[in-house]
Amino acid sequence: MATERDQVRSVQRAFEVLAVFGPDRPTLNLRQAAEATGFDRAVVRRYLLTLEQLGYLARMPGDSFRLRPKILTLAWNYLGSDPLAAASEQPLRALRDETGESCAVTVLSGATACFVGVANAETGLSIRLTLGNELPCYCTAMGRTVLSGLPSEQVAELVRQGPRPRHTNRTPTEVDWIIEQVATVAERGWDVADEELEIGVRSVAVRIPRPAHLAPAALSVSAPTARCSVADLRGRVRGLAQESAERIAADLG
Amino acid sequence: MATERDQVRSVQRAFEVLAVFGPDRPTLNLRQAAEATGFDRAVVRRYLLTLEQLGYLARMPGDSFRLRPKILTLAWNYLGSDPLAAASEQPLRALRDETGESCAVTVLSGATACFVGVANAETGLSIRLTLGNELPCYCTAMGRTVLSGLPSEQVAELVRQGPRPRHTNRTPTEVDWIIEQVATVAERGWDVADEELEIGVRSVAVRIPRPAHLAPAALSVSAPTARCSVADLRGRVRGLAQESAERIAADLG
Repeated sequence: MATERDQVRSVQRAFEVLAVFGPDRPTLNLRQAAEATGFDRAVVRRYLLTLEQLGYLARMPGDSFRLRPKILTLAWNYLGSDPLAAASEQPLRALRDETGESCAVTVLSGATACFVGVANAETGLSIRLTLGNELPCYCTAMGRTVLSGLPSEQVAELVRQGPRPRHTNRTPTEVDWIIEQVATVAERGWDVADEELEIGVRSVAVRIPRPAHLAPAALSVSAPTARCSVADLRGRVRGLAQESAERIAADLG
Repeated sequence: MATERDQVRSVQRAFEVLAVFGPDRPTLNLRQAAEATGFDRAVVRRYLLTLEQLGYLARMPGDSFRLRPKILTLAWNYLGSDPLAAASEQPLRALRDETGESCAVTVLSGATACFVGVANAETGLSIRLTLGNELPCYCTAMGRTVLSGLPSEQVAELVRQGPRPRHTNRTPTEVDWIIEQVATVAERGWDVADEELEIGVRSVAVRIPRPAHLAPAALSVSAPTARCSVADLRGRVRGLAQESAERIAADLG
């Protein structure tokens, strides 16, 4: 008979094995999966075969594995069951058309901001955002905006836990500055980030009011620096984004 | 010490618990989750808490649970690691603009067709398709088209396994008719479905050529019957869809 602890650990390990597959590692064989997870081969093998049997992994020629589309049904279950995702869809498209830039709704997920709604600009030069992608909070407008929905002790804890790598020469890495900035965002309800995560990209984010027991959410517009000034983001674009956020909040009731 | 069998069963059960959450059941408490899975409460409780700890479920007021956005990162891992999803994005948008109708790429996932790429028409009357949603194969154009990429014995087995509920008075439910239709699709590479799943919706699907070790894929266009004739789907729209499918296949190399 397995103990409770063993069973829980099995589940944790299975998800760890599943999570090593991604854009950087689309296919892995047994040896590679063992290296990536730090588990020994016999352990990894058992979970790979279980996940294959469940339909989340496919076995390829040469005994390597890859993710199967069945994993998307879990995403569909989430998107269909979170009223925010449904309420965001139409306003995001309208905001994308008004601004001509890529728009997104993100929610705080652990210590990151996770995209739960996306409407990408379709011009040649535009920022491509992807559903389910996660961005760090400390150096993004949407991240600091969702963080600002938490009590300040929790903000300080999450910021301190780090890591806070420097992505550009504008990436903020000092804990005190970040915490203070999040406090400012908590007061005014919006934030702007200018090439803090990636050179050539600027964003503005505004908070979407939600009940306190749900993860804080934000609406953001991301534009190439070549096309959009910081003043424009802080003024006109922010105004449009705030109108959209209010529509979403009203729709959520 | 847990046996291998116990560990594998724990993982299966955890995914079963996760899969009961969805649009029809966005939140469940312990009793409801036990009823939905058929597991006893102590078992369900253990998995709910494990999934909460892993960040896939959130606990709500009143001790009910709901999916958390972290589940979307698994979708992002899939979409970023399947070259088909990336190669489909731009051609889907172009085809949507050319046809004015909602376009999608689906792949065979188990016995269903799963959406791995979507470009929705943005007119008032249009068919809304969702990433990660799964449709049955026997009564959809995209489903029969992805099925037609399998060897005929496998097609027969999947069709026989059923279920094949009647959704409209045009839903095909006879095994022999469906198998024959899939054989026709295998030869000509495309299929049309006219209100077989839903009244008011017609679709055309064309196969996307892929290496044999990958799940068969299809490109489809879905339109309101009020706007699009069957002749138009079989002719003009199919032609445009086939050009798009060839572009995707060429991009995949």
